[in-house]
Amino acid sequence: MEPIVEKLYVVGVDIGGQTTKIGVVDRRGNILDQTVINSKYGANDAGLFMESLCQTVRELSAELGLENVKGVGIGAPNANYYTGMIEDAANLEWAKGVSVPLAQTVSSRLGLPVKITNDANAAAMGEMTYGAARGMKNFIMITLGTGVGSGIVINGDVVYGHDGFAGELGHTCAVRNNGRLCNCGKYGCLEAYTSAVGVARTAREWLDMSDEPSLLRSLPEITSKDVYEAAVQGDKLSIRIFEYTGRMLGRSFADFVAFSAPEAIILFGGLARAGELLIRPIREEMNANLLSYWKNKVAIIQSALKESDAAILGASALAW
Amino acid sequence: MEPIVEKLYVVGVDIGGQTTKIGVVDRRGNILDQTVINSKYGANDAGLFMESLCQTVRELSAELGLENVKGVGIGAPNANYYTGMIEDAANLEWAKGVSVPLAQTVSSRLGLPVKITNDANAAAMGEMTYGAARGMKNFIMITLGTGVGSGIVINGDVVYGHDGFAGELGHTCAVRNNGRLCNCGKYGCLEAYTSAVGVARTAREWLDMSDEPSLLRSLPEITSKDVYEAAVQGDKLSIRIFEYTGRMLGRSFADFVAFSAPEAIILFGGLARAGELLIRPIREEMNANLLSYWKNKVAIIQSALKESDAAILGASALAW
Repeated sequence: MEPIVEKLYVVGVDIGGQTTKIGVVDRRGNILDQTVINSKYGANDAGLFMESLCQTVRELSAELGLENVKGVGIGAPNANYYTGMIEDAANLEWAKGVSVPLAQTVSSRLGLPVKITNDANAAAMGEMTYGAARGMKNFIMITLGTGVGSGIVINGDVVYGHDGFAGELGHTCAVRNNGRLCNCGKYGCLEAYTSAVGVARTAREWLDMSDEPSLLRSLPEITSKDVYEAAVQGDKLSIRIFEYTGRMLGRSFADFVAFSAPEAIILFGGLARAGELLIRPIREEMNANLLSYWKNKVAIIQSALKESDAAILGASALAW
Repeated sequence: MEPIVEKLYVVGVDIGGQTTKIGVVDRRGNILDQTVINSKYGANDAGLFMESLCQTVRELSAELGLENVKGVGIGAPNANYYTGMIEDAANLEWAKGVSVPLAQTVSSRLGLPVKITNDANAAAMGEMTYGAARGMKNFIMITLGTGVGSGIVINGDVVYGHDGFAGELGHTCAVRNNGRLCNCGKYGCLEAYTSAVGVARTAREWLDMSDEPSLLRSLPEITSKDVYEAAVQGDKLSIRIFEYTGRMLGRSFADFVAFSAPEAIILFGGLARAGELLIRPIREEMNANLLSYWKNKVAIIQSALKESDAAILGASALAW
């Protein structure tokens, strides 16, 4: 019999539209070494990209020894945990309109177990393994970035559903009638209002609707970061934008709680840094819409992972 | 070592506001014997009610032998699977404003394992064990009765959440502004529109709003059954009520699918008997609101359990 040796490291890979981050991570969530490759490498040839990825993982693991690596976790758009495929990801040229067998290919080339999932599920795994959700069995991760993603954990497991695509809470309906057009083609999605892009859009709409003075008026373009910075400086319109965005999130969160009764909802991503500016209205509106036995019992908390590390950590958590 | 003997039977108990149904069930879902006791027995003394319940279980199992019974499953309002308690059930005098340790008491008196849960979760268990969801690992049960309940199954397990109260989809928001007051005290809940009571209320409101002729006008009181029967006879207003109710359900179902990506949504309860009158608009509206990869992939089906048996079967399924 072989002796049982606990492998010491995992590799986390975060495939974004522009860059792919790769890091070697230990059990405590320390990133021991990391690097970046170009997500556009190989253009529309997925095989070339995957070879570049595998080569980089080999180089990065060489010092610690590939034999000490337990596995590889990959976070990527439209990644299906069950099939191991990236399925038609519009932002990746080599995965546009096709299914790419990412997990299987990388696994056979490296000789290591490989698990893939989307970014929000990876974030939930990262939070549960190294972050604010350690010890939690039931929580919901909401990522407030360019879009709104979600990773749902029930009984300690990420929910993948029948087909692997569960947890698209950014595309639940926040506004039933005359809602904003969302990137997904539907109207009124939560994402259309509460993503970074949605917040900037709210700002532009509200500036158009009145003459109310605002620090935002002097800016050539408006981002959610501008709205945040103006709010911190006391800009009334910007503060109301966070109030509005938070209330929109809070009433949707109440419906999410009615579904899975989580212990906490954890916020991640750029907008989450707005802290109480956003969390206070979320908390108030969520509690106003909850059934009595949940009122004031579901925590709204910010991610405990450093944003620059979170993508690698989240992906790496899949591999333990 | 004792020989391993597979126990052959379970007992299912359904505690309703008026009556409590008790049945002995075999592995194939045949109810071998059943009876009914008064849920009001003992008035506000939970101990008396539980003694009556245990005595009846003993009598009902006597012929088959209590030693052949694997356990007891109980469906009851506000029943918490984790704690085994009924927690403040307004419709049960002996559980109003108090927590009753139902599972523990019945278990110690009978010397059998006892599991409890609410009616909708029990229905989901019943459907998975004996009914339309056999072989399914991911589905949502929606019970359309006096209220709207739900039992959510993910990876083959009913979702109870952090506190045992998960799956209150009847109290997710269907109408954001100027919604109907729901029994729970909130406004705009799905239940306020799509329960049997909600359908009757829609009928009364619509009759008031216009002079449109309708078979319903001649009735002294209107129930959802009246609306169904009028619709079957071609009554246009009644048909539109089912259309409206179905669309309301369908757009909420789209949000539920975004959460857990189920294989199917199963309808149970009186209203579900309306069949295509209700299911066609549900299906159309759900698909219109789904992300592209779920369109036309989530089945809407009726329960396969006989309604008179379903409550006992559902509860009994907890005990296997």
